[in-house]
Amino acid sequence: MSDLSHLDSEGRAHMVDVGDKSVTARTATASGRLTTTPEVIALVKADGMPKADVLSTARIAGILGAKQTSALIPLCHPLPLSSVNVDFAYTDEAILISATAKTTGKTGVEMEALTAVAIAGLTLHDMVKAVDPAAVLGEIRLEEKTGGKRGHWTRDG
Amino acid sequence: MSDLSHLDSEGRAHMVDVGDKSVTARTATASGRLTTTPEVIALVKADGMPKADVLSTARIAGILGAKQTSALIPLCHPLPLSSVNVDFAYTDEAILISATAKTTGKTGVEMEALTAVAIAGLTLHDMVKAVDPAAVLGEIRLEEKTGGKRGHWTRDG
Amino acid sequence: MSDLSHLDSEGRAHMVDVGDKSVTARTATASGRLTTTPEVIALVKADGMPKADVLSTARIAGILGAKQTSALIPLCHPLPLSSVNVDFAYTDEAILISATAKTTGKTGVEMEALTAVAIAGLTLHDMVKAVDPAAVLGEIRLEEKTGGKRGHWTRDG
Amino acid sequence: MSDLSHLDSEGRAHMVDVGDKSVTARTATASGRLTTTPEVIALVKADGMPKADVLSTARIAGILGAKQTSALIPLCHPLPLSSVNVDFAYTDEAILISATAKTTGKTGVEMEALTAVAIAGLTLHDMVKAVDPAAVLGEIRLEEKTGGKRGHWTRDG
Amino acid sequence: MSDLSHLDSEGRAHMVDVGDKSVTARTATASGRLTTTPEVIALVKADGMPKADVLSTARIAGILGAKQTSALIPLCHPLPLSSVNVDFAYTDEAILISATAKTTGKTGVEMEALTAVAIAGLTLHDMVKAVDPAAVLGEIRLEEKTGGKRGHWTRDG
Amino acid sequence: MSDLSHLDSEGRAHMVDVGDKSVTARTATASGRLTTTPEVIALVKADGMPKADVLSTARIAGILGAKQTSALIPLCHPLPLSSVNVDFAYTDEAILISATAKTTGKTGVEMEALTAVAIAGLTLHDMVKAVDPAAVLGEIRLEEKTGGKRGHWTRDG
Repeated sequence: MSDLSHLDSEGRAHMVDVGDKSVTARTATASGRLTTTPEVIALVKADGMPKADVLSTARIAGILGAKQTSALIPLCHPLPLSSVNVDFAYTDEAILISATAKTTGKTGVEMEALTAVAIAGLTLHDMVKAVDPAAVLGEIRLEEKTGGKRGHWTRDG
Repeated sequence: MSDLSHLDSEGRAHMVDVGDKSVTARTATASGRLTTTPEVIALVKADGMPKADVLSTARIAGILGAKQTSALIPLCHPLPLSSVNVDFAYTDEAILISATAKTTGKTGVEMEALTAVAIAGLTLHDMVKAVDPAAVLGEIRLEEKTGGKRGHWTRDG
Repeated sequence: MSDLSHLDSEGRAHMVDVGDKSVTARTATASGRLTTTPEVIALVKADGMPKADVLSTARIAGILGAKQTSALIPLCHPLPLSSVNVDFAYTDEAILISATAKTTGKTGVEMEALTAVAIAGLTLHDMVKAVDPAAVLGEIRLEEKTGGKRGHWTRDG
Repeated sequence: MSDLSHLDSEGRAHMVDVGDKSVTARTATASGRLTTTPEVIALVKADGMPKADVLSTARIAGILGAKQTSALIPLCHPLPLSSVNVDFAYTDEAILISATAKTTGKTGVEMEALTAVAIAGLTLHDMVKAVDPAAVLGEIRLEEKTGGKRGHWTRDG
Repeated sequence: MSDLSHLDSEGRAHMVDVGDKSVTARTATASGRLTTTPEVIALVKADGMPKADVLSTARIAGILGAKQTSALIPLCHPLPLSSVNVDFAYTDEAILISATAKTTGKTGVEMEALTAVAIAGLTLHDMVKAVDPAAVLGEIRLEEKTGGKRGHWTRDG
Repeated sequence: MSDLSHLDSEGRAHMVDVGDKSVTARTATASGRLTTTPEVIALVKADGMPKADVLSTARIAGILGAKQTSALIPLCHPLPLSSVNVDFAYTDEAILISATAKTTGKTGVEMEALTAVAIAGLTLHDMVKAVDPAAVLGEIRLEEKTGGKRGHWTRDG
């Protein structure tokens, strides 16, 4: 009935069987952005100064979030992550978030990279919401993936 | 040094002390969207048919995610949620996500509503990624909040 | 459309709003049993001897499980448990499990007591499965509850 | 002192060392049932109609629960689950629950299948308890397992 | 049989009933230290420089750890923390850790403060272990507590 | 800029990439102690008597804690633990804690052994704090490790 692999032939959700997939090195990179005001960006950039913790708090939240992916996303498989990186950059009105996850396993790490971005972004949202409740977390998307049967995929094809 | 309340006077992250805030009824509504292809929307809409589980899986993930907010977002306070709702709607190219959280407590439930939207959205992403790895989760934002010292806030002011 | 309170008027799952319910002292007691062989019962009864840990392991698992109820059961509200007890007794072919949970809150603790019994029972199952893979965990049920709008309920009416 | 493998020679609980066991494909199927009233069964069966979420909520809870097994059952080993399925059927007075878990690992997935059944069953209990507080979750048991040193085991021998 | 309140009259572990205790503001401060080499202290002190994340990583881990206390320590009650702070200082051979937790609740927050110190200290241990596997985490102890029936307690009496 | 492997070249925290490390059998043993009063030691030693649960509660907490290591310590990799043991001994004024963790994986299990000791020690602290709030958890340290590129390490060299 469905081309959505997470549904069985009757449309019921299940964790698809990856038991017969091969174990390969896999990576995924995802990105997103928190759009806010120039004033907030200026406050957060103070993080470049000694002792300010905004970005490091969001980074740690993202890394820990990646490790919780299979507990948060119901149909995700548990994966032994071999590395997670979360990085940030700025535009005048946004904090750009990027995360890369790696594993050697039977299924891809796209959701781990996306979850790292989302949790890091929510953490930034939490820290700026008192001064900008209208901030928007958006453009959370996969940028690139490697490994597995389908091999290399990039957003720009 | 900072107007960001999650940082102390030296710029260090901390959970701000809400011990003296009053206990009031509080609500927050957040929204977001997963942008994908018309073909995927057609597949997911099959969820309106008997037995298909796409939206209910994302809904449950969002509700459970809201309850994990203080474990995921480092500086969030644990809150006794009194209700969580997650709803969906469609455009031609997107699944719209809306979540409302309520509590009677000392601090707001904005992050709980935003986390419900983000986790529901990531779950949709997971379910459509095999057919549309380019899907984008975006526009995650607070729409409205009530309760607490600042009272009613809406996005449109 | 439904008399099941966990479904809204369209049949969608939600955490029902308990915001307007009164805060009262509430208790619930649940029970269950792991049915196995007389030989296994004899082995487990060695727990009455110094240093054997079967029942204490199951007890701790049950208490910790009760505290995870709202993370495990999607539509349960988080509750500040004020106490949890898990006790055991024997028949010739079964280990009887009993758990009592208490809170002062807006909703009942039935699920916490039932979850304590289930997790304690699964832990017993785990410990005996090498010698009796056919063991059966059953009769998990509410025995009594107090507090809340409906007041005292007992299984025997 | 003991034939229970989860106890050491002094009767102390430990996680048994599976380091030297071979990595093989392993599956386990468990079952259980929630016994309630014909009226409740009729309400839940409305889940066959569009938009009703009872069974899908319990299914997702069971799948997520299976992934939490080693965090819930103290002496269970963490396992990389390669698939989890949870299915339901009806009798006049009961909802039948069945779960199958698979892994490629050093120890079996019996507890993951049993935990999926128990958490799915507790979730059903939660959803029907307002109309039938006397519902009973029972007959949680292993039906079949494959893989590992002992190979194929079925309940009926 | 016992003066240890976490054991019942038969010596069995239970979560003691705090249902009748009064809700008061409570605070606790705990401390500890990671003893390592002067060389490691010099490396970590680079955290005072822009962009280095050692202490902020440990701080976030400690704050998140405090919020997991009742899930980690079997007989602890869940508490709605109203604030958590984790701070660090240096001697020539040690990183000093201090944590303060606050709540308005029926039982004290000693364990939350102690858990914050322990998890922050373990995180420091993790970050220095490649250069100093012999580092020692010690002197984890309560310094002061306020609130509750016993009122103010300080280590020095 | 740094010799701390958990920081990248700019001093930012990350989970180091272990993808290219070899999979080997690895073990780690850690120890610690809870220092208290002779009176408390006498109470806890009652655990040698039938039915008293102090040490078994701490043991189970330590084993479960070891399995949560990568969720608690931000830059730790998830590891499939193949065994965990937690043991206790007494001096006149202290409870000695020892834990051994094993895995077959790409990185060591030092943090798992140390976390088991710390959580077991915090649990003992919790149980004695009503009679000895001044108890001190200390000397948490690695004793020995095997496996991996560096091979055998012992505290005494």
